[in-house]
Amino acid sequence: MSGNSIGVVFRVTTWGESHGKALGAVVDGCPPNIDLTEADIQGDLQRRRPGRHSSSSPRQEADVVEILSGTFEGRTTGTPISLLIRNKDSDSTAYDEIRDIFRPGHGDLTYARKYGIRDHRGGGRASGRETVARVAAGAIAKKVIARHGIEVIAYTQELGGIAAHEISLAEIEVNTLFCPDKKAARKMEERLEQARKQGDSIGGIVMILVKGCPPGLGEPVFDKIDADLAKALVSIGTVKGVEVGAGFQAAGMTGSACNDPITPEGFATNHAGGILAGITNGDEIFIRAACKPISSIEKEQSTIDVNDKPTAVSIRGRHDVSVIPRIIPVCEAMVAICLADHLLRQQALGATGGT
Amino acid sequence: MSGNSIGVVFRVTTWGESHGKALGAVVDGCPPNIDLTEADIQGDLQRRRPGRHSSSSPRQEADVVEILSGTFEGRTTGTPISLLIRNKDSDSTAYDEIRDIFRPGHGDLTYARKYGIRDHRGGGRASGRETVARVAAGAIAKKVIARHGIEVIAYTQELGGIAAHEISLAEIEVNTLFCPDKKAARKMEERLEQARKQGDSIGGIVMILVKGCPPGLGEPVFDKIDADLAKALVSIGTVKGVEVGAGFQAAGMTGSACNDPITPEGFATNHAGGILAGITNGDEIFIRAACKPISSIEKEQSTIDVNDKPTAVSIRGRHDVSVIPRIIPVCEAMVAICLADHLLRQQALGATGGT
Amino acid sequence: MSGNSIGVVFRVTTWGESHGKALGAVVDGCPPNIDLTEADIQGDLQRRRPGRHSSSSPRQEADVVEILSGTFEGRTTGTPISLLIRNKDSDSTAYDEIRDIFRPGHGDLTYARKYGIRDHRGGGRASGRETVARVAAGAIAKKVIARHGIEVIAYTQELGGIAAHEISLAEIEVNTLFCPDKKAARKMEERLEQARKQGDSIGGIVMILVKGCPPGLGEPVFDKIDADLAKALVSIGTVKGVEVGAGFQAAGMTGSACNDPITPEGFATNHAGGILAGITNGDEIFIRAACKPISSIEKEQSTIDVNDKPTAVSIRGRHDVSVIPRIIPVCEAMVAICLADHLLRQQALGATGGT
Amino acid sequence: MSGNSIGVVFRVTTWGESHGKALGAVVDGCPPNIDLTEADIQGDLQRRRPGRHSSSSPRQEADVVEILSGTFEGRTTGTPISLLIRNKDSDSTAYDEIRDIFRPGHGDLTYARKYGIRDHRGGGRASGRETVARVAAGAIAKKVIARHGIEVIAYTQELGGIAAHEISLAEIEVNTLFCPDKKAARKMEERLEQARKQGDSIGGIVMILVKGCPPGLGEPVFDKIDADLAKALVSIGTVKGVEVGAGFQAAGMTGSACNDPITPEGFATNHAGGILAGITNGDEIFIRAACKPISSIEKEQSTIDVNDKPTAVSIRGRHDVSVIPRIIPVCEAMVAICLADHLLRQQALGATGGT
Repeated sequence: MSGNSIGVVFRVTTWGESHGKALGAVVDGCPPNIDLTEADIQGDLQRRRPGRHSSSSPRQEADVVEILSGTFEGRTTGTPISLLIRNKDSDSTAYDEIRDIFRPGHGDLTYARKYGIRDHRGGGRASGRETVARVAAGAIAKKVIARHGIEVIAYTQELGGIAAHEISLAEIEVNTLFCPDKKAARKMEERLEQARKQGDSIGGIVMILVKGCPPGLGEPVFDKIDADLAKALVSIGTVKGVEVGAGFQAAGMTGSACNDPITPEGFATNHAGGILAGITNGDEIFIRAACKPISSIEKEQSTIDVNDKPTAVSIRGRHDVSVIPRIIPVCEAMVAICLADHLLRQQALGATGGT
Repeated sequence: MSGNSIGVVFRVTTWGESHGKALGAVVDGCPPNIDLTEADIQGDLQRRRPGRHSSSSPRQEADVVEILSGTFEGRTTGTPISLLIRNKDSDSTAYDEIRDIFRPGHGDLTYARKYGIRDHRGGGRASGRETVARVAAGAIAKKVIARHGIEVIAYTQELGGIAAHEISLAEIEVNTLFCPDKKAARKMEERLEQARKQGDSIGGIVMILVKGCPPGLGEPVFDKIDADLAKALVSIGTVKGVEVGAGFQAAGMTGSACNDPITPEGFATNHAGGILAGITNGDEIFIRAACKPISSIEKEQSTIDVNDKPTAVSIRGRHDVSVIPRIIPVCEAMVAICLADHLLRQQALGATGGT
Repeated sequence: MSGNSIGVVFRVTTWGESHGKALGAVVDGCPPNIDLTEADIQGDLQRRRPGRHSSSSPRQEADVVEILSGTFEGRTTGTPISLLIRNKDSDSTAYDEIRDIFRPGHGDLTYARKYGIRDHRGGGRASGRETVARVAAGAIAKKVIARHGIEVIAYTQELGGIAAHEISLAEIEVNTLFCPDKKAARKMEERLEQARKQGDSIGGIVMILVKGCPPGLGEPVFDKIDADLAKALVSIGTVKGVEVGAGFQAAGMTGSACNDPITPEGFATNHAGGILAGITNGDEIFIRAACKPISSIEKEQSTIDVNDKPTAVSIRGRHDVSVIPRIIPVCEAMVAICLADHLLRQQALGATGGT
Repeated sequence: MSGNSIGVVFRVTTWGESHGKALGAVVDGCPPNIDLTEADIQGDLQRRRPGRHSSSSPRQEADVVEILSGTFEGRTTGTPISLLIRNKDSDSTAYDEIRDIFRPGHGDLTYARKYGIRDHRGGGRASGRETVARVAAGAIAKKVIARHGIEVIAYTQELGGIAAHEISLAEIEVNTLFCPDKKAARKMEERLEQARKQGDSIGGIVMILVKGCPPGLGEPVFDKIDADLAKALVSIGTVKGVEVGAGFQAAGMTGSACNDPITPEGFATNHAGGILAGITNGDEIFIRAACKPISSIEKEQSTIDVNDKPTAVSIRGRHDVSVIPRIIPVCEAMVAICLADHLLRQQALGATGGT
């Protein structure tokens, strides 16, 4: 109930603090007989690592994952898979000065109010570092859904106000920003550099596509698949908004324009984003997630300390200028976990059900 | 697991189809010793009823709720509260012609694909009528949170592209559209009338405010309160997007502009929407939900029948022109249910925790 | 979390008090396309009704069930099935005198301590009448497992110290006590009559058999199928002990005697009761449940009132002399619900898993 | 859903195989601000280790626990506590010969049928070694309930047919068998030695007492505290039966003998075992668990191999002669976990509720 698990059948529990000994995840409910070794997970962990882009945190964690249980001779056994990632490069001294200060935009104040105690080092459990466990678990989820032909692709749609216009999926993994538009990517890099020089940070928008999803996934009425996807994405600390299909644009449309006509060959348009009444319709799913700018900035900000006294703070710890591009594999992971869960839930219905 | 329950401690399970015998909810986990009679629930059911505005469905359901269990001499006992609302005015004959047709924008196709069977009458479980049970349960949730000084207020922020600008909360319950801007409300009414004449429908945006929420509610990392609120709102069939605080706007901001400075008197701004790292910070919570236009329209649309043959459909059943204003109490209910749940979850932490 | 739901995939939520307006259940997660009408449920409700045996309560409830949702043209749709059973013959006046008294053996005192309020009429939610909803839900579970060839049979193995020795399953539904031994049944009836005359009550032991269960059901390590069956049975108010297979006898055996040798034709013995390491092994499952004597007796007993003052109580309300035979269909229902749930959970594993 | 988690608010997830790299647990929902270091856990792990008695397995695991997360400066923070115990002495070669054979009494056959794959080394996930993670998590649960004055004590009541008669709690931790009767303990040791020489194993009965439990814990109707305790205990692989209070004896009693009279000073007797209608009544809780003999024996047994061919097996791996005494701390752990969970669940009710 404490909120560190997600999924019903394919269930992921994560644990760990930014500057603790380690982070990890337990993946329970993974089907047996799937090939799985650390190499299957390490790839996505690399994609999430800083260093891909120069704007990212100088903290250098190898992020080597160890599978501690749940596999036998390279295959899953149906028992819980425990994943371990040791923290190596956690220098907490930089955080000594914020031990008694609440950083604006961070969870410092709310953790203190909620628990009456907080691990201030690097944000503790509220750190973006927590997402390393999500990515590790997500890599397993991707294998589960890949067996059914489902693929998740995320990319940078907007960064610091600069939008990708010409979408080339082939370009995504080529540039450092997971941006499908080469030209836009270059401008985004300049924008990042500018923000860094200003001691500031910037936000952006992530697009997530799901290809090959069969119809029938999603559980009415509360566990609609778009409701669960929205939760999965907003559970990422930085995400402040989510749109399914046409999203907020749909609010300004008429029904005759928004409804997707149905033909024997499929839907004529896809304003629904591949989901109708909370159930996948067989079309491509697409969702957008709005990411706020990183809260840690060098620019001085007004705040209070733990004694409610006003003070100022300038954050010099190692941090990114934007959650993009590192958030991209995290978004993919959360969507993959959600889909793996609903895929198995649908299987529980038995032969009479769809899929 | 089938998705008809929401909440962990304060747990609501709903059931019922649009043209079945009845709809209802079971509210489990409601604290004991709260005054509760049908009158406490009936008010919100009235606010949701059609007829408030002329654009709404001519189907006239009295929506009289009966409390079947969980109270004794007008107070809750801590045992499950069963709520029953009989369907009276369900004329299914109008739906005979769509028995073998999938209406665009509706769940007809996806329910068929998922279950291999569907109750076509009025959309069955996928009908907007399903929300009557949510509103009934939400009225109880409102009583739970009211004891802690928390109040939920929703209003129409935009309808058919027309936005409310001058926000007067006092105006909300005065006009038929729950719109806080009297002038905008008048234009919205005209827009509704225009759409009706065109046999079309329109969408809109709902703003939900939470006043008086104490800090400390929300469970890291997956059950962040904004993640659960996003799920609760997107689980409403019509909602295609959600923004917490600055939402998508935050994606275009710098950290120095987006972070809310903290002062001894509180936050200087509220881009966070009252939530930091998934935990309430004591400030006002605000969330926006984008509602797509009603899928049922008279205008002819292309579609297929159950044998995959192309056909056309014009929907003449009794339906609204927009989910606004009837969606307003539904949004309130979902937010109240989510808050009641997290309030009780926080209590489970015991005296050492916050609140 | 409030404990009125059981099952993960096939999930049953019950509600209602002994002297409230009604009792009922919501069955969520039932697969679609199963034939289901009230008649399928009414049979088991009849088997549970008093009047089958003269020792049972003179309270005459028709126990007519109404299916309010989840079916369409006589088949399940995959949406939640709401079951309603109205209370008709609830005369609460007999309970006025115990309003301020805690009856020994009952939940009066513990409900008061837990909730600070209690519905004293007929025991409220703690009444045996609560099981009517379990039986109704169990009838649906039986249909789910019957499609896979699984059948649940319960019988009276012991009553008031008199044991059934010659087991004839054909006899079970013939006599009024669900006893498979005709001679023993006669003696049991005499024992019941004797207890009634003495203003006392007696206990007994129920045997539950499961025939046709495929191997592979049960989830290690906490949701072992015997762990879930034990919970399901002990959740019946009257059950104070449970044995799986050899049960307490196994504690006195050696490994060489207790282990069931395996042959190509199956197990040579069945001390395991059809379950190994918490997973069904394909053999017959058998479990025994110990039922305490009914707590309501005419004989005067010492107790206290709500002000902690000593007093005496003699219970004259309408009640049975033993939970047997009425508990028999309740035990069947709980076991069927548990099996239906684990059957669907196993299906979620997909084609690679067993069954 | 895969069954490796237990508890709702205080939630324990375990993972790991007997001969895998490690075993561990994630404890989610532990309240903040509790003193906790490895030393608090190590004590119970020592009590569970083999070597306490000469009848136990020669496998020597140090069972050193590492706390990987959830504490800060020696106190819990409210975030998930990850516990790691590395396997050091896992020699799997002894298991090569049973790779293709199903050992009687073990989960070999059922895991194969369920998952289509099994880790045969030492029983994999079905090994008794799995309980090391339960004991580690249970040590934390004990700290949670100790703050409310609750203590769990388990002891050997019977072993190989020899019962403890004179109960001296002070004696429990003195002898090697956790037996409260010194004389009986000596006879039990002889019985163990005899069984070992015969290449056989023996079973026994564990008594678990809970002292200091406040009234009001337990959730009607399915999550009765005795139902949850029964599940918690039967989830231990070796437990085949459970009795709450008078248990099976109650089945032979009359109501007037079985009901516990209530006085202003408390209950005159305690046949209820401290639980009424599934809720604690403030009296001492006592439960008995029947443990079958260890399935691994040297004596030759008939079985089949994975190709359904008959064969014989004699197990020479390192194993105990009885689960007693090592099961004692495991029973304590499961009961403590269950109580910690229900304690926090009751807190969620808020000030109006009991406790």
